[in-house]
Amino acid sequence: MSEKLPNAVDLSHHLSDVAKTLEPRAQGQTPKPGNIGMDGGVPDTEYFPIESINVTYLKPAAFPLHPTDALPHGPGVLGWIANILTGKTSKTTEAPTGQFIIPRRLRADDESKFELKSALQYSPTTGLPAAERIIYEWVARVHKPAYNDWKTLIDIGASSAWSSCLTILLNPGDSFITDKYAYNAALMQAHTRGLYSVAVKTDNDGLSAVDLERVLYGWDEKARGFKRPRVIYTQGGIQNPTGLLITAQRKKDIYDVAVRYDMIIVEDDPYYFQQATPYSRSTVRETKKQTDEEWLDSLVPSFLQFDYEGRVLRLDTFSKSVGPGGRLGYYTGSPLLLRKLEALHQSFISFPSGFSQAIVGELLHRFGQEGFTRWLRGITAQYELRRNWAIDALYNSLDVRVKDNWSPTLTAYAPGDGQMSEKFTQSKSLMSFVPPDGGMFVWFNIHLHNHPRYKRLAHQTSPAAAKTQLSNELWTAITEAGVIFRRGELFVAEDDDEEEDVFLRASFSSGPKEDLEKGMKIFATTLVKFFQ
Amino acid sequence: MSEKLPNAVDLSHHLSDVAKTLEPRAQGQTPKPGNIGMDGGVPDTEYFPIESINVTYLKPAAFPLHPTDALPHGPGVLGWIANILTGKTSKTTEAPTGQFIIPRRLRADDESKFELKSALQYSPTTGLPAAERIIYEWVARVHKPAYNDWKTLIDIGASSAWSSCLTILLNPGDSFITDKYAYNAALMQAHTRGLYSVAVKTDNDGLSAVDLERVLYGWDEKARGFKRPRVIYTQGGIQNPTGLLITAQRKKDIYDVAVRYDMIIVEDDPYYFQQATPYSRSTVRETKKQTDEEWLDSLVPSFLQFDYEGRVLRLDTFSKSVGPGGRLGYYTGSPLLLRKLEALHQSFISFPSGFSQAIVGELLHRFGQEGFTRWLRGITAQYELRRNWAIDALYNSLDVRVKDNWSPTLTAYAPGDGQMSEKFTQSKSLMSFVPPDGGMFVWFNIHLHNHPRYKRLAHQTSPAAAKTQLSNELWTAITEAGVIFRRGELFVAEDDDEEEDVFLRASFSSGPKEDLEKGMKIFATTLVKFFQ
Repeated sequence: MSEKLPNAVDLSHHLSDVAKTLEPRAQGQTPKPGNIGMDGGVPDTEYFPIESINVTYLKPAAFPLHPTDALPHGPGVLGWIANILTGKTSKTTEAPTGQFIIPRRLRADDESKFELKSALQYSPTTGLPAAERIIYEWVARVHKPAYNDWKTLIDIGASSAWSSCLTILLNPGDSFITDKYAYNAALMQAHTRGLYSVAVKTDNDGLSAVDLERVLYGWDEKARGFKRPRVIYTQGGIQNPTGLLITAQRKKDIYDVAVRYDMIIVEDDPYYFQQATPYSRSTVRETKKQTDEEWLDSLVPSFLQFDYEGRVLRLDTFSKSVGPGGRLGYYTGSPLLLRKLEALHQSFISFPSGFSQAIVGELLHRFGQEGFTRWLRGITAQYELRRNWAIDALYNSLDVRVKDNWSPTLTAYAPGDGQMSEKFTQSKSLMSFVPPDGGMFVWFNIHLHNHPRYKRLAHQTSPAAAKTQLSNELWTAITEAGVIFRRGELFVAEDDDEEEDVFLRASFSSGPKEDLEKGMKIFATTLVKFFQ
Repeated sequence: MSEKLPNAVDLSHHLSDVAKTLEPRAQGQTPKPGNIGMDGGVPDTEYFPIESINVTYLKPAAFPLHPTDALPHGPGVLGWIANILTGKTSKTTEAPTGQFIIPRRLRADDESKFELKSALQYSPTTGLPAAERIIYEWVARVHKPAYNDWKTLIDIGASSAWSSCLTILLNPGDSFITDKYAYNAALMQAHTRGLYSVAVKTDNDGLSAVDLERVLYGWDEKARGFKRPRVIYTQGGIQNPTGLLITAQRKKDIYDVAVRYDMIIVEDDPYYFQQATPYSRSTVRETKKQTDEEWLDSLVPSFLQFDYEGRVLRLDTFSKSVGPGGRLGYYTGSPLLLRKLEALHQSFISFPSGFSQAIVGELLHRFGQEGFTRWLRGITAQYELRRNWAIDALYNSLDVRVKDNWSPTLTAYAPGDGQMSEKFTQSKSLMSFVPPDGGMFVWFNIHLHNHPRYKRLAHQTSPAAAKTQLSNELWTAITEAGVIFRRGELFVAEDDDEEEDVFLRASFSSGPKEDLEKGMKIFATTLVKFFQ
């Protein structure tokens, strides 16, 4: 930590009524050396039935940096052998796995940093010290917050973390700003607590700083029925559901507005490391020559990096890098907010699973920062490949065209329809989308206003009712054709009578290539048929 | 489940305002066979960096049923070798460990029931199905609830579980009944939420059903300032801090009162399996010949076994049987309450760590119910041995005497003082205690009214102030002598001006025998000196 950076400003006026009363309690007494501790009800560690855990893990370079196709037999040991036998991998390739052991007790010369004696015992709310250190050092390397006294705190995953943020920051009846389309589970959590989400427009650079200013400047508490929001919730890296990131300049603009209006930004960022290279149509895609370090530094920075006042509360998770089942993540933020979160965890969570802390912690220790960077890069390349499969598949089934050269938005037509006159094609477009900047999702804007029955339906009822009916019909058709997407309505942050767009979210994150391609093809075919 | 048992009665009027709005949400769409799921943002399981987990575990019989002393080198493989080399264990003893593997993917012929593919993925709020089944079947075997449609739900440990119970059952300003001295962290959690704990007297058979009736019958809402409690919180098996259990007859009596007053009993029971045989002074202690099955059936039944209406919400944990670090436990209760808890978990927890579920789940699968019973019995024998060490050590340093033949309470005097006349010794007793029925704690009632300065101090100030001052002095003296106990004041459920007793809780659950004996000796010596 540079001594020149300022400390966090005092944001205690943002605390909820609940948070005001929360302070971490002393967790039993730690006896001084030589003293005999008969304080807590802790089991003797000799009675833990697990003697040791031996973990076989994929090495950081298990996945190639520039995959052109899937390894058909997977990356593990069995897949490695199969890939060699089928000629997909060179025989000289190093075995892709390593091993580590978590023993009952560490000895001085053990390479491991975690032991079951501590991992299976009660641990501090702040987690096992070795895990805490790894996390802190990783944030220092990657995010470099622009103030001095930032802290990290281990948690049990981002959805619980967001819930805790709501508890310490907002009282029932309060509100928060978010993107016009925001992560549906995050919205649901807030709404079931009696909180209001206020939508700000989003463009291809992310949440609009201009619209944020407009909403805040013109806030009319009487007309709205609740106070001006003090909190912004957004997914800064890659957004769910749009698949787009907030650019660095836009983050800075948003941060500046947040400072002027004294707001807190909760940055929920599960897909930060899944920033892909831009989608391109060439079959042999250009691959950037970068070291892993350069790759890490080339990622669009998080809000933390602009945060010189400690008003960003960042949520990270190991769900996308290790696995959601580990239920492990961490907050980064100011000492005040993290102290309140620690106190809240103490009452509601205690601490994250010691199995998770030890296994994920030891994995990160073995990887090291360099290895973990390489691992993330390999995984990101896989998700990028999947995104390419998905978009390529759309190109194969639809007539996909650039509408404006300055915009990344693509517009899709029924095959052949794109050949017609500009005016005609405008009225025949089926949908538009932006190839995702990374992450797991593609977000389709369905042009229901071009549906042959739309005008009649809208005339008979209303534009909104017509859209709802057509949207339901399309959803049924796609589902009956055997593909499950997620409906865009679930992501709407704030009801808006003027809302005309209907979206569908498709995930390209898992399953075999053939299924992904087939799913996209079915979607495209169904869409063409539906618009006939 | 017998078809003859009734279903749970409708207790929906007990739900808190929050609980009324909670319903489990559909968790994404599960695609039908043959359909392509592009709904959720789930990572591809091929990208999980953990290839397999190989666990070495202690076999169910690792600890002897009738230990007369500690195995000096511990129960593990290294300890086993050392114990053979030093002649502490016979050479023919079977190696005390086994192994299992949790692979990335299960194959049809695998003995394991858990795979990383599922354990590291998002899992249902209700946990991995194999873990869910093991838990349900265990409760069916052990507790046999007296109604038909009881359910279990996996959770992240009892302290979080109790917090969730408070959320679904009580509104701020509500109250609950508990033992006069109750688990301090449970009280703290409730008090920081603005809930009131109402104390009911406790005797050596546990919470008094008579006093419960008295408190409920005579409830004066105006005088009290809040409504009559609808919930009882108690630790039915072995209580913390008293170390005593609630007898079967007493549980039945309490349950009957609960039915008449339409109450819910939250039974937090971490020490259920740690029911020890009664303490005896003989150096060669009698050992009961029982099969493991008989042992399990001989345990004092839980409230669940008397629950024919579904008004018991039981909290179990693997903290004492596997390790607190696993953060794994489960509720048993009626479908209504468990549905509300599931919905709450969905928002606040998601699901317990998949590492914990898979490792603990697979361990239980390998143990089987019989093996797990044997394991619990072995552990209980160890804690019983520790209790004996602790009480034996007190006998060695103090003059410990039975006061009344009908009561298990023991009274302790300075060595030699017990030889004097009955009247004299009454005024010289230092403390009294009941040898614990099991668990981890012994609960000392310090006779400060016999302290030489008590009368003068009480006259100068008040009896309460005198006790506080002497209690502080004693605490300082014990701490300075190098022993850390926990102060009884922390366990007081309800302030009571007439309260005269001062308690200390000592844990005998961990650490070497020598430390335990030394700790007790220092306590005894400090006590004698303090009363001089």
